[in-house]
Amino acid sequence: MTITVSIDAMGGDHGPSVTIPATLSFLGKHSSARALLVGDQRQIEAILARADSAIRGRIEIVHASEVVGMDEPPASALKNKKDSSMRVAINQVKSGQAQACVSAGNTGALMATARFVLKMLPGIDRPAIASSLPSQTGETLMLDLGANVDCTAEHLRQFAIMGAALESALRHDPNPKIGLLNIGEEEIKGNEIVKQAAELLRASDLNFIGNVEGNDIYKGTADVVVCDGFVGNVALKTSEGLAKMLVDFLKEAFNRNVFTKMAAAIAMPALRNFKNRIDPRLYNGATLIGLRGVVLKSHGSADALSFETAITKAYVEVEENVLEKITERIARLHAASSTSPIP
Amino acid sequence: MTITVSIDAMGGDHGPSVTIPATLSFLGKHSSARALLVGDQRQIEAILARADSAIRGRIEIVHASEVVGMDEPPASALKNKKDSSMRVAINQVKSGQAQACVSAGNTGALMATARFVLKMLPGIDRPAIASSLPSQTGETLMLDLGANVDCTAEHLRQFAIMGAALESALRHDPNPKIGLLNIGEEEIKGNEIVKQAAELLRASDLNFIGNVEGNDIYKGTADVVVCDGFVGNVALKTSEGLAKMLVDFLKEAFNRNVFTKMAAAIAMPALRNFKNRIDPRLYNGATLIGLRGVVLKSHGSADALSFETAITKAYVEVEENVLEKITERIARLHAASSTSPIP
Repeated sequence: MTITVSIDAMGGDHGPSVTIPATLSFLGKHSSARALLVGDQRQIEAILARADSAIRGRIEIVHASEVVGMDEPPASALKNKKDSSMRVAINQVKSGQAQACVSAGNTGALMATARFVLKMLPGIDRPAIASSLPSQTGETLMLDLGANVDCTAEHLRQFAIMGAALESALRHDPNPKIGLLNIGEEEIKGNEIVKQAAELLRASDLNFIGNVEGNDIYKGTADVVVCDGFVGNVALKTSEGLAKMLVDFLKEAFNRNVFTKMAAAIAMPALRNFKNRIDPRLYNGATLIGLRGVVLKSHGSADALSFETAITKAYVEVEENVLEKITERIARLHAASSTSPIP
Repeated sequence: MTITVSIDAMGGDHGPSVTIPATLSFLGKHSSARALLVGDQRQIEAILARADSAIRGRIEIVHASEVVGMDEPPASALKNKKDSSMRVAINQVKSGQAQACVSAGNTGALMATARFVLKMLPGIDRPAIASSLPSQTGETLMLDLGANVDCTAEHLRQFAIMGAALESALRHDPNPKIGLLNIGEEEIKGNEIVKQAAELLRASDLNFIGNVEGNDIYKGTADVVVCDGFVGNVALKTSEGLAKMLVDFLKEAFNRNVFTKMAAAIAMPALRNFKNRIDPRLYNGATLIGLRGVVLKSHGSADALSFETAITKAYVEVEENVLEKITERIARLHAASSTSPIP
């Protein structure tokens, strides 16, 4: 099967200068893939002029006359930018011209537009933002990372179902371990909504391992960590801030004087190994999950390597039939609850 | 003025083998300070037998026959352990025998007992857990770190007032910058409670700089970051987990082969400088703020250096009149609101 990915070529802080080289590199590695580059035709053509002709043959340009600003309110983007590269890129998924869409544009606008154009999967009330973070045992999939700030217990259950389906599709693990993000204090053990969500998850057919704490994200205690979008976003941003500070402190420690600078040169292979292992560019790309279509959100400041990671994630999600697997899992759940004897 | 600190000698994972050496070291550095060591008299005396006599002269043993277990439910500790080292240590503050109390015992029990024995400061509904984290510009005081999982906007306002008073007392900054922890998504800009809290803070006399995000904690954007205890605890534990993973990855990178091991030896001064800068033992000690008394909670697994940091924090809070400063600030606020013209 040929998989076609629709790329919002204008999105992100750097636009086509990043999205197009990333697309070319991705196509170079996936010989059966195709790409739709959506945006300003002239700009895109100018950059594509230098492309390898075999790869160029698997690219189609779809013109879009507008661009959604990085700070533009989602409602305004939805109402006023009907010919934006973001909107048109999503339309390609709706019409079946593409099987997935990738954008580095503003998250709120992407979420609102994708939801409006593609609609939700049956049985899912709200989309969530899911992404993998590095852990001591591999990777931890975490959701929601910021789409939903006020969640009910039922929303958290739906996030768990979607997370389980995504994780099992991507890692070929039929029964991934699901943890509910909570706090350790014995007296209280989390707020009311989290307590109710834990009950719903215990009653589900998911492999629910119970509450996990913030440090478990990086310990790899669970394969999937479920939380509301407020908490998830704080955890993610806090991690970004701490990682940046630690890397800066490490640089400063090696830049203190001529001896430490010499040591840095000698330690370079080890330091590079360390750096590569935590390179955020290798984790870029968050799935907007719960929609009737595969949509990946790249970090706005992504460079070409980083944006390519997001495109590859979109490709793999289509290849692994993530949407069908989520839909099946929800249908199975509904069937189970409608046939179960009334207590 | 002589400051006397009451030490729960039995609390924490290691009990007297950590708390007593930490107390001796602290007293060695603060020649006018005194300590009450609360717990099993025989055990304490045995360890103190080797102490320097000048320091020993500034220590009094207060016998307590029971110990609160690290996993004991707070309600059970409160009801059944009236002669616990934790409870008796707090009683010393209530009776005026000591001006502050330090415990590495279980947080829930310490919080419940301190609140029951000492009561709240006037105008404060709930105690919060406050602690400083390292940042790129110095330190960031953050609260609440886990005492309150369901907060109202008014609670968040009270945390901001207490945090401002603590920060200004400790850092001699009359007008510390207060940030409200939120998420960046334009469309939603936080949940309802955080939105209301922002309005209350804008109307207050605090130096409120607006919303901050998770990464701002380590960037040092605000001097004080305010959030509910669920979010704060997740941010703190996530940070602990990430820091541990990164340090482990760094060790692994230097342990890969004989060349990287040699590089590690050469890089040791720089690596040690890095390690010392982020040593969590130098940040140990969270203030249970809002009580009519200074109570510091040490990490349960603290070693002697770490526990000494918590004792020193307690000492400094008394020296800097933190309680009086919080009380004044709240009184000023109440006076302002009762004399302000009705809108």
